[in-house]
Amino acid sequence: MSWMVEDREFSREHIVTNGNKYMTGNGYMGCRGTLEEFGKEQLAAITLAGVYDQSGGKWREPVNAPNPLFTRLRCNGERLGVLNAEPLSHRQELNISAAVHKRETVYSISGGELTFTAERFVSMDQLHGLAARFSLVATSDCRIELETGIDSEVWDINGPHLYGLQEQSIEGVLLSTAVTGELNLRVAVAEMTVHGFETQETAWEGARRFIAFDIKAGAVYEWFKYAAVYTELDCSDPAVLAVQNVRTAEAAGYEQLLAAHCKAWAKRWKQSDCLIEGDDTAQLALRYSIYQLLIIAPTGSEKVSIPARGLSGQVYKGAVFWDTEMFMLPFFLHTDPGTARNLLMYRVHTLDGARRKAAEYGCHGAFYAWESQDTGDDACTLFNVNDVFTGRPMRTYFRDKQVHISADVVHGIWQYVSFTGDESLLLDGGAEVIWECARFFYSYAYYNPVKRRYEILDVTGPDEYHERVNNNAFTNALVRRTLEVALECAELLQIMYPEQYHRLALQFAEGPFLKEFQEMLESFFVPQPDPDTLLIEQFDRYFKLEDIPLAELKARVLHPNEYLGGGNGLATTTTILKQADVVLMLNVFKSSYSRAVKQANWEYYEPRTEHGSSLSPCIYALVAADIGSPDWGYPYFMRTATVDLTGESKQYVGDLYIGGTHPAANGGAWMAAVLGFAGVQFDGKTLQVKPALPEQWTAVELPLSLRGDSFRLRVSREEITVSAAAGNRDALMVCSPGSADQLCRPGAELTLRAAGAAAAGANGIDNAIAAE
Amino acid sequence: MSWMVEDREFSREHIVTNGNKYMTGNGYMGCRGTLEEFGKEQLAAITLAGVYDQSGGKWREPVNAPNPLFTRLRCNGERLGVLNAEPLSHRQELNISAAVHKRETVYSISGGELTFTAERFVSMDQLHGLAARFSLVATSDCRIELETGIDSEVWDINGPHLYGLQEQSIEGVLLSTAVTGELNLRVAVAEMTVHGFETQETAWEGARRFIAFDIKAGAVYEWFKYAAVYTELDCSDPAVLAVQNVRTAEAAGYEQLLAAHCKAWAKRWKQSDCLIEGDDTAQLALRYSIYQLLIIAPTGSEKVSIPARGLSGQVYKGAVFWDTEMFMLPFFLHTDPGTARNLLMYRVHTLDGARRKAAEYGCHGAFYAWESQDTGDDACTLFNVNDVFTGRPMRTYFRDKQVHISADVVHGIWQYVSFTGDESLLLDGGAEVIWECARFFYSYAYYNPVKRRYEILDVTGPDEYHERVNNNAFTNALVRRTLEVALECAELLQIMYPEQYHRLALQFAEGPFLKEFQEMLESFFVPQPDPDTLLIEQFDRYFKLEDIPLAELKARVLHPNEYLGGGNGLATTTTILKQADVVLMLNVFKSSYSRAVKQANWEYYEPRTEHGSSLSPCIYALVAADIGSPDWGYPYFMRTATVDLTGESKQYVGDLYIGGTHPAANGGAWMAAVLGFAGVQFDGKTLQVKPALPEQWTAVELPLSLRGDSFRLRVSREEITVSAAAGNRDALMVCSPGSADQLCRPGAELTLRAAGAAAAGANGIDNAIAAE
Repeated sequence: MSWMVEDREFSREHIVTNGNKYMTGNGYMGCRGTLEEFGKEQLAAITLAGVYDQSGGKWREPVNAPNPLFTRLRCNGERLGVLNAEPLSHRQELNISAAVHKRETVYSISGGELTFTAERFVSMDQLHGLAARFSLVATSDCRIELETGIDSEVWDINGPHLYGLQEQSIEGVLLSTAVTGELNLRVAVAEMTVHGFETQETAWEGARRFIAFDIKAGAVYEWFKYAAVYTELDCSDPAVLAVQNVRTAEAAGYEQLLAAHCKAWAKRWKQSDCLIEGDDTAQLALRYSIYQLLIIAPTGSEKVSIPARGLSGQVYKGAVFWDTEMFMLPFFLHTDPGTARNLLMYRVHTLDGARRKAAEYGCHGAFYAWESQDTGDDACTLFNVNDVFTGRPMRTYFRDKQVHISADVVHGIWQYVSFTGDESLLLDGGAEVIWECARFFYSYAYYNPVKRRYEILDVTGPDEYHERVNNNAFTNALVRRTLEVALECAELLQIMYPEQYHRLALQFAEGPFLKEFQEMLESFFVPQPDPDTLLIEQFDRYFKLEDIPLAELKARVLHPNEYLGGGNGLATTTTILKQADVVLMLNVFKSSYSRAVKQANWEYYEPRTEHGSSLSPCIYALVAADIGSPDWGYPYFMRTATVDLTGESKQYVGDLYIGGTHPAANGGAWMAAVLGFAGVQFDGKTLQVKPALPEQWTAVELPLSLRGDSFRLRVSREEITVSAAAGNRDALMVCSPGSADQLCRPGAELTLRAAGAAAAGANGIDNAIAAE
Repeated sequence: MSWMVEDREFSREHIVTNGNKYMTGNGYMGCRGTLEEFGKEQLAAITLAGVYDQSGGKWREPVNAPNPLFTRLRCNGERLGVLNAEPLSHRQELNISAAVHKRETVYSISGGELTFTAERFVSMDQLHGLAARFSLVATSDCRIELETGIDSEVWDINGPHLYGLQEQSIEGVLLSTAVTGELNLRVAVAEMTVHGFETQETAWEGARRFIAFDIKAGAVYEWFKYAAVYTELDCSDPAVLAVQNVRTAEAAGYEQLLAAHCKAWAKRWKQSDCLIEGDDTAQLALRYSIYQLLIIAPTGSEKVSIPARGLSGQVYKGAVFWDTEMFMLPFFLHTDPGTARNLLMYRVHTLDGARRKAAEYGCHGAFYAWESQDTGDDACTLFNVNDVFTGRPMRTYFRDKQVHISADVVHGIWQYVSFTGDESLLLDGGAEVIWECARFFYSYAYYNPVKRRYEILDVTGPDEYHERVNNNAFTNALVRRTLEVALECAELLQIMYPEQYHRLALQFAEGPFLKEFQEMLESFFVPQPDPDTLLIEQFDRYFKLEDIPLAELKARVLHPNEYLGGGNGLATTTTILKQADVVLMLNVFKSSYSRAVKQANWEYYEPRTEHGSSLSPCIYALVAADIGSPDWGYPYFMRTATVDLTGESKQYVGDLYIGGTHPAANGGAWMAAVLGFAGVQFDGKTLQVKPALPEQWTAVELPLSLRGDSFRLRVSREEITVSAAAGNRDALMVCSPGSADQLCRPGAELTLRAAGAAAAGANGIDNAIAAE
């Protein structure tokens, strides 16, 4: 029950959102959850990870491959399809346990009904492969004309991207090849359709097959489709491999492919499924969030990361944002450290792009792209939103001022190293990334001679409605962390890998390097809680802005899609923020602030938060759990976990379409459930569990992968149970407020009493303003 | 001929601009050039210098006094006036030699014509007084009903300002009194109308008189009006003084008042008239510009300065901008140093307001108001322009980021001291102003640890279309000057006035003070000319902006009044600038840059300048003259000098009315003619003359007041003649390129050969990038 997503009728209004909701994929490609007869107008797309193209001066974006799932029917000469005929019944379903998409549509035909089913999956076993099974059953005899093959008319936002299209048929395999416009990368899609019934007529046109056959009432007519996608990024001759792959698949047969796919999925779920007892709605939503992360995880490549809209299309240019490190990484760290490493290696591979960007702004080091694609050069334009009132492009500062991206990357790398103990990442380029980011901040910072401190000026923090602010608390806190990490990393390498350290450090001999980092750190300003109110000011002079209720701001809106930020946006001159900013900082540095500070800031900032980003609600859920008020957090968790199920998210900013899936929210849902409500915290040595379950939840149970060892954790209101796999190498120290610390040895299971939220303050920093 | 401004017909379209063009005034009050029958709808106003009021949360602005010139006619029961009856002929004229306004209107009446004349002046002899002479002559007998008195229904932009209005008649004198809403200042206007003819009926209503009389064909009916305006800023009982003043005036009689007024004007013109030989159009325009400065000069008070729209109404809140120091001060320095001193003492008196503003922004010292009124607190709001597309107030940064204002004030003070040698200004508060402004900049500046220099970040320079920029060349150059002046001033006082110095310096003992100024100065960044192009970048990354022709920018305009700056303004992302910025800097520091640098920057920036401010063209005229290309400059001079004659200036910014007179342009016209084309430069010791006359001009002749001595200077293409008044105390060193330096002793006249523009480069800094 809690594995199934379904719609029991067809609605034109949901074509676009269902394309996201029913998405399948395997990290190599994403396949939008469109129906078989859909084309580019319905946003059908097979989006390729890491293949980007720019067309005619427009925004660079990922390439959508020709669609080999394309299938259309005619019955007795009339076109059948949800867009042409009102179906008698229609069901679309996605089984997230194995990522199998299915549709069943019943059409009225002369003298009876025709039932069409199509089942498909993007193979998790063979990352280039897709397969589908179709069936037709009618209650009266009829003539069917089937049109199926590869639809090259793909959806593009800023296309076209595919040139020199060639379509051919090679001994039953249809092949569609093209090259991308900018990089001349060959893209090949092969397809084979196999059936066992007798046909009246078969024809080809381009990469489409036309098959006519008569069907008898009551008989089941079934056929299969095998498809494969390759690009020149995978191999030197994608066409050959695509055809080969399809032939191999056909030889194996649908059932065998499906079984291998399901097995791969079972393994994934074993590593990551999180059980919620007592709340089926939340259970499905959380699983669905995890599902969304699994279908886009780059398990097979360290050259790509996860775009902000996953692989659900070309929205946001298929670009990788801070979302990955700050909102998705924790899920992978706890369940699939190998993929976590890939995500971070992507930053290593794009370091040169970040260096180029820093140099472009006259800075040292590495300033990571706000919108990162294959090279690490910034895909973000200076005019990223159009003004709905004038239609003009609006100067925004995402690209040039959201400097926290470099600190987010460093934070991600250091999280990985601390969490996994895998220091090889540092030697494989991670240390260089860390130091170059610290060098960037040193050169970006200014010293205030009167206040005798370094400050970070003219930035945009997470709250993008307030651009170009000074001393954004979140940014400054992360910059400080970057400097600390740069020094810690150097110390670690000096001790553990002195030779490599000296080789690496050589390039920074002229500075700024450790001496400068140390000096900056010693007089670096991070906004602190006010001694009276405990509030942390989001940035300099934030508290002087017009302080109006969110409802009043909304009442001032003149156009439904007007952007609240930018040059003249309504929020810019008020205290209304787009998304968690100070509160996000309190989550990132949760052990540095007292519960009282967290609570005061939660209570102050939440009513002022528009949650105009899907990255926002999960953070309020996390901090609510952290302060022992999980029920404050529960609605934010649900909002986060259901964003792609309900489709209730912002679809436009200005006149820019921003729909698609929301991997950061998906990762945020997992964080809220596991790191928030279950209260899991692992610092590389000790597993701390401080549960704060919402009222409905009786327990949370999940697997954890810690430093290469496997554990299962069950957290209920009364007790915490940890069981270690027999094959684990090390014992794990487990602690929880209100219980003595215990060591969980390989193969053992231990139980701790759960003190619950009431004892959350027992770690001794309550009522202190900050723990530092 | 070159003293007369006139219109020979009435046009409704010109009511507002003629109100500016025909303005009279005396520095205490401005009287708009409206006709006698006009009321508030026609923007009739007597604007009081230095009397401000805020009403109902709206913008604080100067108070307009009730209008005692108000006069309406009926003839045979029908109302006569240009708004009611189409006149047979109409003439409005202003004799700028004595600031006498006159109108003559001929109306058709039954059986013939009626000629109405009204002559008036705002006394330059008695600053509280106004007087007028009226006459009527008809070609056929008729019955006249005259309504005259004090019109309390005054024009207000953000009124009402006058409360508790009381109107009374005291033995023939009408008195209108009221109090301002905010400060409860009493305002009194008294009026007396005197005639010699027989009347049929006389009545009063409030402060209006109704006089009916029969007139005979051919006879002249004449009457006089005496009026006075006082406020509680002048005396404790303004009503008493107003009535007294009117009685005294009436006793003296119109002719005597007029004679005294004319005598005062003759004296002013003797000090300031500038003759242009060979160009009558330019002559009138320049004289008219000087006239505009004379009618608003605060000769009698050091508590007021000159607002950006003079005394022509309430536009720009009647506030004082940098216009005074940077565009008007030179005229007064050269012609009326006493008034120049008043203007600067106004800044001394408003120092506390500037201190409050600095503190408000967390800075030390004095941050002068961008829009300064009586207290020096900033009248500029954070939302100074409305967006024409949404009607919403737009966040602008005039108030918080145009920090150069404090440097402009310092520059003005030091100009005055150097020019006049009058060091008393420093002891009377000028030194404190200088030091507090330097302290402000020290606390505003940031140190860049990588570039090892102090920078000025996040400012708006003169080009207000580019807000919040870093290292604006103009601002940084003036900040450096401020630091230099602060140190020079300290040195001067230490040597000359050690006791006063130590008393003054005591308050800065805790710093930042001289030590810090010196340190900042030693590593302070001012953008320098590029070695190849000689261009100075207006601010960091200006050269990276979209570089489009002005015409293309204008073609993008969607609404005639849309603001090109602000959050989303069209110019903000392009190289198009509002007004001279780098080129202004080259003029302010003219001896520090080579001719080649000036020319390269003139040629680069001029085509990119929108001249969206009336402060812009004069600067291009000045620098054109400086580089020996006066004919490039002439059109800019003419545009500047005629701005209030033609009324061809921007009337709206967004939906904000900004019409009125343009004293900065008036001062700019004088600067262009005298400091530009005539090439006058006095550094406190030597008069340097480097003429570059436009083609049409054969000579320029003018008086100069230098260090208390009087001179006349005549500059032709061939020679320069300087004559010194016999009463002068000191000899003056005069030099000119291509001629040996000569000493001009009291009573002497000397002639130098003029090398003309061709030798302009002879001062030895040509082809050097900068002289520093």
